[in-house]
Amino acid sequence: MKHFKVAIIGGGPGGYVTALRLKQYKIETVLFEKERLGGVCLNWGCIPTKTLVKTAELFTEIQEAHEFGINLDNPKIDFSQIYKRKDDVVEKLVGGIEFMFKKLDLPLINSLVTKITKKDDIFYITSEAQEVTADFVILATGSKPTELPFMKFDHKKILSSKDILQLKELPKSLAVVGGGVIGCEFASIFQQLGSDVTIIEFLPRLLAGEDEEISKRIGMAFKRNKMKLILNKGVKSYEETDTGVKLTLTDDKSIEADQVLVSIGRSSRCEIEFQNIDLERNKGSIIVDEFMRTGVENLYAIGDLNGKQMLAHTASKQGLLVAELIKSELEENPHDIEPIIYENVPRCTFTNPEVASVGLTEEQAKDRFGEILVGKFPYTASGKAMGMGNTFGFAKTIADAKSQKIVGMHIIGLQASELIAEGGILIGKGATIHDVDKIVFAHPTLSEIVMESIEDTISLSVHKI
Amino acid sequence: MKHFKVAIIGGGPGGYVTALRLKQYKIETVLFEKERLGGVCLNWGCIPTKTLVKTAELFTEIQEAHEFGINLDNPKIDFSQIYKRKDDVVEKLVGGIEFMFKKLDLPLINSLVTKITKKDDIFYITSEAQEVTADFVILATGSKPTELPFMKFDHKKILSSKDILQLKELPKSLAVVGGGVIGCEFASIFQQLGSDVTIIEFLPRLLAGEDEEISKRIGMAFKRNKMKLILNKGVKSYEETDTGVKLTLTDDKSIEADQVLVSIGRSSRCEIEFQNIDLERNKGSIIVDEFMRTGVENLYAIGDLNGKQMLAHTASKQGLLVAELIKSELEENPHDIEPIIYENVPRCTFTNPEVASVGLTEEQAKDRFGEILVGKFPYTASGKAMGMGNTFGFAKTIADAKSQKIVGMHIIGLQASELIAEGGILIGKGATIHDVDKIVFAHPTLSEIVMESIEDTISLSVHKI
Repeated sequence: MKHFKVAIIGGGPGGYVTALRLKQYKIETVLFEKERLGGVCLNWGCIPTKTLVKTAELFTEIQEAHEFGINLDNPKIDFSQIYKRKDDVVEKLVGGIEFMFKKLDLPLINSLVTKITKKDDIFYITSEAQEVTADFVILATGSKPTELPFMKFDHKKILSSKDILQLKELPKSLAVVGGGVIGCEFASIFQQLGSDVTIIEFLPRLLAGEDEEISKRIGMAFKRNKMKLILNKGVKSYEETDTGVKLTLTDDKSIEADQVLVSIGRSSRCEIEFQNIDLERNKGSIIVDEFMRTGVENLYAIGDLNGKQMLAHTASKQGLLVAELIKSELEENPHDIEPIIYENVPRCTFTNPEVASVGLTEEQAKDRFGEILVGKFPYTASGKAMGMGNTFGFAKTIADAKSQKIVGMHIIGLQASELIAEGGILIGKGATIHDVDKIVFAHPTLSEIVMESIEDTISLSVHKI
Repeated sequence: MKHFKVAIIGGGPGGYVTALRLKQYKIETVLFEKERLGGVCLNWGCIPTKTLVKTAELFTEIQEAHEFGINLDNPKIDFSQIYKRKDDVVEKLVGGIEFMFKKLDLPLINSLVTKITKKDDIFYITSEAQEVTADFVILATGSKPTELPFMKFDHKKILSSKDILQLKELPKSLAVVGGGVIGCEFASIFQQLGSDVTIIEFLPRLLAGEDEEISKRIGMAFKRNKMKLILNKGVKSYEETDTGVKLTLTDDKSIEADQVLVSIGRSSRCEIEFQNIDLERNKGSIIVDEFMRTGVENLYAIGDLNGKQMLAHTASKQGLLVAELIKSELEENPHDIEPIIYENVPRCTFTNPEVASVGLTEEQAKDRFGEILVGKFPYTASGKAMGMGNTFGFAKTIADAKSQKIVGMHIIGLQASELIAEGGILIGKGATIHDVDKIVFAHPTLSEIVMESIEDTISLSVHKI
């Protein structure tokens, strides 16, 4: 039976990134993944949706092309080509990572792990294909879409976020149950491609985790794009019709749609049988401490499985942290490893317009600091946004009034998902609102919107009317 | 004769921004501008060109739309609509700033300043319309395109960067003399819109101020787009032909084109008569110290006029610095005001692909620090870039090996002009290459390219093959 220093179970953005980093550290590692590398993120999440977002955005721009001085006839989408491109991109990316594993001679066992046993400080990992032993195990088995108990995925009319990525044609109408990040992204994509989309959200607002003002603004944007929003209501029951599905809502009204996407959240998954290993769980998630330690020595759980923050980049970061911990332990070189500050992890929603945030919302900051400073700057006052012909949205900076430190940034509008990195760096470096005095932002760029939102916290934004 | 605390001469991005900031400081200010507010930047530079860039990029994407699953017929540009949109955007932006001046009751004298006299510590400013006095004067009269002595602008076939923004139709062929930022931007725009473009550059590479590797890559990209590049050669003479212009080069070969853009640089301009004021000049630029002081007490020169760094955002930053100096002097509250570190000002070139940089080039860093660390990461390895269907380019981070501080960043590729702000913030905050450990970058974003280029300085980029 082959022995490794580290065995990683699950090859998503948590597992595969950690394996590559351990390889960089020259620590002998094996990775188990029963499907393709990349997990949900690369195969059924972040990446395939971003290819659809690109087409949706381009199609929207093409319909306004005459305003930019470009004339054309008969713009039409070719749904099968859109999905083919999605598959091609996924294949190229996943194939690229699989190629890296081969090139680096990093052992990858393409098999389902069924059992892990701990005996004499050694882990015995049993998979359908083979058994190995390891000193350390990192569980990274991810999550799956949560089902509505009375409306289970039938993969035809009741779709999960994975099912919707396997459609053969554009639904004429689509009901999206759940207006969180995943629901909003698909709603935005399909509305732009030409579906008639309705979002049903139980809470009073979309993207309920976001700052309230941003949340309201995305609702406005969706309505402007002729999407239907049903807020404060849930789905009570459903029945199939000749053409699709009829949903009865909690107010007894009903709506019909060709297909339904259920995007009410994701649940940690781990179907491994553990022997001699006692894991604490919370609704399926494995409870870990700030260093992803499960309580069982040398056994870690990272990514969606621990339920701390279900984001691909959080999974990767948790994995890199664990890799560093293991390295420091093996080298008997303990040094300060700082835990992840989850609120400072940026969150992006790739809708049209994009939404992105990092740090605290206005409400959270008020609760924590009492007196806060809020600066805002609209895209309408940005020369670059005007040049690009898209001035919807704003950036908002939140600072603690006492320390003057930036503690939150929230952006809705063009390229928000890239601009938010500036907020992430500023907050990560502990920057105050006065630090922008020493930094020059290029003109004309959208980054100036970030700058002026910071300057506006003390009413020194020059271009804000 | 009305008296002001501060008189600003010239309403470009140096002058108008400074006036607005002084108003925020409640310091009585008058601004002289003989044309519309915004200067070359808003009226004949940064902003109008960015509207053209948008159309050029969209037109390029439209020609590849079928790959993204969008079919359409007969894409054609409507040149007059492109230029109309440019004018509309400029009008809206300039009108917006003029509206701010009115709303804030900020005195604006729409007249040419012809003479400034200093007497008993008071400046007498004479314009064609009226005369005022002021305690402080900020000169911000900008620059103009440099002419070739043997081929002066005729505004028909021999064009300046201002003339080319007033064309009535797309030239079939365009020769661009000078492959700096302005030349490359127009070359890129017109090539994408369908002109047959040739760049003639005296130096061995385009964008000669950029890192050599970036410089070579933009040349590759231009050639791939079927542009013609003639390097290491200048123009010796020209003659008009029936259809356009024939240029004879320094190697005696010749090329023909409908029109010629001469973009060999810009020269400071200031046609004011100074009395009792002794200014030191260098080829038309007014020499200033690190705080924009001319040597004449209370007389400052900012922006292109002082020739320190001919960029709109540098002009604004210099103006904001002077505003702060004046405020601190008036309040008799001297405090540390840090001079601008020019090498840390980001530079952007809005070509396709975009080029952007901040800090030192690889060569400069080697000269200064001896041992340096260089990290590189290609767009081809970015999931987001793949999703967007554009993977040309790379990011490069340069760090001082001893201090491990990031000292330069260079990017060529999608949204480089926005990503460079991350480099600007990192360098401005004195970040080391290890600081990225504490910062999480969202997935999937192009910002991860910046992150991995930093990690690659110590061979810890996970996705680099």
